[in-house]
Amino acid sequence: MSTFGVSLKKLVDDSYDIEIGYSLGNKLIKDLKAGLVGKIKKFAVITDSHVEKLYAEKIVSLLEYAGFTVNTFVFPAGEKSKTRETKAYIEDEMIKKEYRRDCCIIAVGGGVVTDLAGFIAGTYGRGVPFINYATSLLAAADASVGGKTAVDTPAATNLIGLFNQPKKVYIDISAWQTLPKRELISGLAETIKHACMADREFFDYLKENMSSILAVEKKACEYIAEKNCQIKYHVVEQDEKETGLREILNLGHTAGRAIETVSEYKLLHGEAVSIGLMAEALLSKKLGYLTDAEVKEMKDLLLAAGLPVDIPEYIDKEALVKKLYTDKKVKDGKLRFVIQKRIGEIVEFEPNVFATRIEEPVIREILFQM
Amino acid sequence: MSTFGVSLKKLVDDSYDIEIGYSLGNKLIKDLKAGLVGKIKKFAVITDSHVEKLYAEKIVSLLEYAGFTVNTFVFPAGEKSKTRETKAYIEDEMIKKEYRRDCCIIAVGGGVVTDLAGFIAGTYGRGVPFINYATSLLAAADASVGGKTAVDTPAATNLIGLFNQPKKVYIDISAWQTLPKRELISGLAETIKHACMADREFFDYLKENMSSILAVEKKACEYIAEKNCQIKYHVVEQDEKETGLREILNLGHTAGRAIETVSEYKLLHGEAVSIGLMAEALLSKKLGYLTDAEVKEMKDLLLAAGLPVDIPEYIDKEALVKKLYTDKKVKDGKLRFVIQKRIGEIVEFEPNVFATRIEEPVIREILFQM
Repeated sequence: MSTFGVSLKKLVDDSYDIEIGYSLGNKLIKDLKAGLVGKIKKFAVITDSHVEKLYAEKIVSLLEYAGFTVNTFVFPAGEKSKTRETKAYIEDEMIKKEYRRDCCIIAVGGGVVTDLAGFIAGTYGRGVPFINYATSLLAAADASVGGKTAVDTPAATNLIGLFNQPKKVYIDISAWQTLPKRELISGLAETIKHACMADREFFDYLKENMSSILAVEKKACEYIAEKNCQIKYHVVEQDEKETGLREILNLGHTAGRAIETVSEYKLLHGEAVSIGLMAEALLSKKLGYLTDAEVKEMKDLLLAAGLPVDIPEYIDKEALVKKLYTDKKVKDGKLRFVIQKRIGEIVEFEPNVFATRIEEPVIREILFQM
Repeated sequence: MSTFGVSLKKLVDDSYDIEIGYSLGNKLIKDLKAGLVGKIKKFAVITDSHVEKLYAEKIVSLLEYAGFTVNTFVFPAGEKSKTRETKAYIEDEMIKKEYRRDCCIIAVGGGVVTDLAGFIAGTYGRGVPFINYATSLLAAADASVGGKTAVDTPAATNLIGLFNQPKKVYIDISAWQTLPKRELISGLAETIKHACMADREFFDYLKENMSSILAVEKKACEYIAEKNCQIKYHVVEQDEKETGLREILNLGHTAGRAIETVSEYKLLHGEAVSIGLMAEALLSKKLGYLTDAEVKEMKDLLLAAGLPVDIPEYIDKEALVKKLYTDKKVKDGKLRFVIQKRIGEIVEFEPNVFATRIEEPVIREILFQM
């Protein structure tokens, strides 16, 4: 009968800065006073039960001292909290404290905090600005940069979420000193992934400097923080919404996320990714893109970092194979994997296509051998 | 220590068509075959328990006949279903049925269905495309056009959601014939709001043709469907994300939504908006923008449509005043209202500012009189 066209073309600028340094709370306040989020005066600091005392309280004090209104919203630390239920709990608390659209969320913590807080910011009042203050190596290497936010559901990790870019990311390296060793090591898995995916020289640097990194030495930490950011944002700038190139960041994650879920989060995210990197290296080898020697080099580096490379015995491998099908890259019911080519490259199968269909028996054989 | 700039400027085109007509199922299939959502072959039809048998089943049959994969996801009809819990339930069912990123959601129903399905589409796999097939006057007049999606929480309506534009909107006027009378009338409140806000001639048309509209006569229905779309999309095109002009669509809704929530959804959305329109007309009169005669004209039209204009006795007015503060327009803890100027205009207080601060005693006095 009749048709109307609604014209909604727009130029969107979601650009932002990543600042790497030590104890950046005062810098955050300075930036807010200079108008980082406009005239907003009300802040919601979202953090977890570990980070609250270590860092969030200090940032809250600085915000209060600067004359801003601020409340803290805390949830129990750990991947198990990254749920729709925690999101709803924080939203309800924010509503009770009368937060409306004229507020800004500040995520203070590791990857779980930045993933969850960024998602909350994206849907609260249909979207309020947010800032990531990253206190872990994992958040620095991965979660805080790139705008992927999500929660886990009982059946799948990270399937419900948003692409939502922060206004700024602060990477506080001094916080790495207080990370539990297991958390620090877990964060190294994403770092090693970045090297395997994009930068052979960085891989060699990690081989040569692993002991300095594990000792949280200043120079080494600064270097890996910078390298991680560079590699990640270079990809995200070219393909924010994962329509092509960004899929390469899935290296090690197709198997890794499935292992993480089936372990019922007994494995930390990075530990599961480490095992996933090994599984997918074996897949690359099978397809002729990696040599035995290169697979060994990767294995040695993961082991030197203190990361696991074998699937734990308690993992039900049938459940693991089934869980692979919950991956977001699945198309027409078929598994798809990112394939590494030598160390420092990813195979581009067709122009702008970086994942390829793998028949179930192929990956099944690899997983059942590990 | 070091700062990196992540550059994310992009040209986004969220333009879409609204098609108004009768029994548009075949047109939908034709559009899908012509590539409306690219190469997608898998569809999730989201609907409610009322609409399922009336329309959704037919659309599902047409999709199956055309060779697409399709499943139906049904929730109990009514505003009480527009919750985070229903969203989670449908997501989990979609995960079980192996929906990944390569799918499209089709919302078949009224405002509750399009609000909920559009929100699910926005966060499923971090965003999949969706289409609105609107079967109610309310959805035609309001919910299906403009990209506002949301759920209600125990404390506030529509506070958790997204701006998320559909790929196309179908407005099936033949479906209005089967609407329960109370639903049809409820939808008229948004229609009258549009007239009060933007179009005196349309207001006069409604006065003269109310009996034809209530009899669902073809010509009158086509006219109001078109007028509603025109008025709404004209606003949305200029201000998609409600940074200025779009606030005018809140006319009647600041009080209306609070009345709706405090009534515990005993009042339908449109019924609450009708009472809200009256309350805010009295506020406009108090500020000198409406005459007694104009307020009476509005009241008469709402009554002619069969809509309520008084606050029901069961409403706790103290709770109502308190609930006003959950409105998204609240700034610095102060209530803000959109103010009507004569019939067919809104006051622009400053350039691009269409809501003004109202002190609590002013609105309190009006609500306690009604």
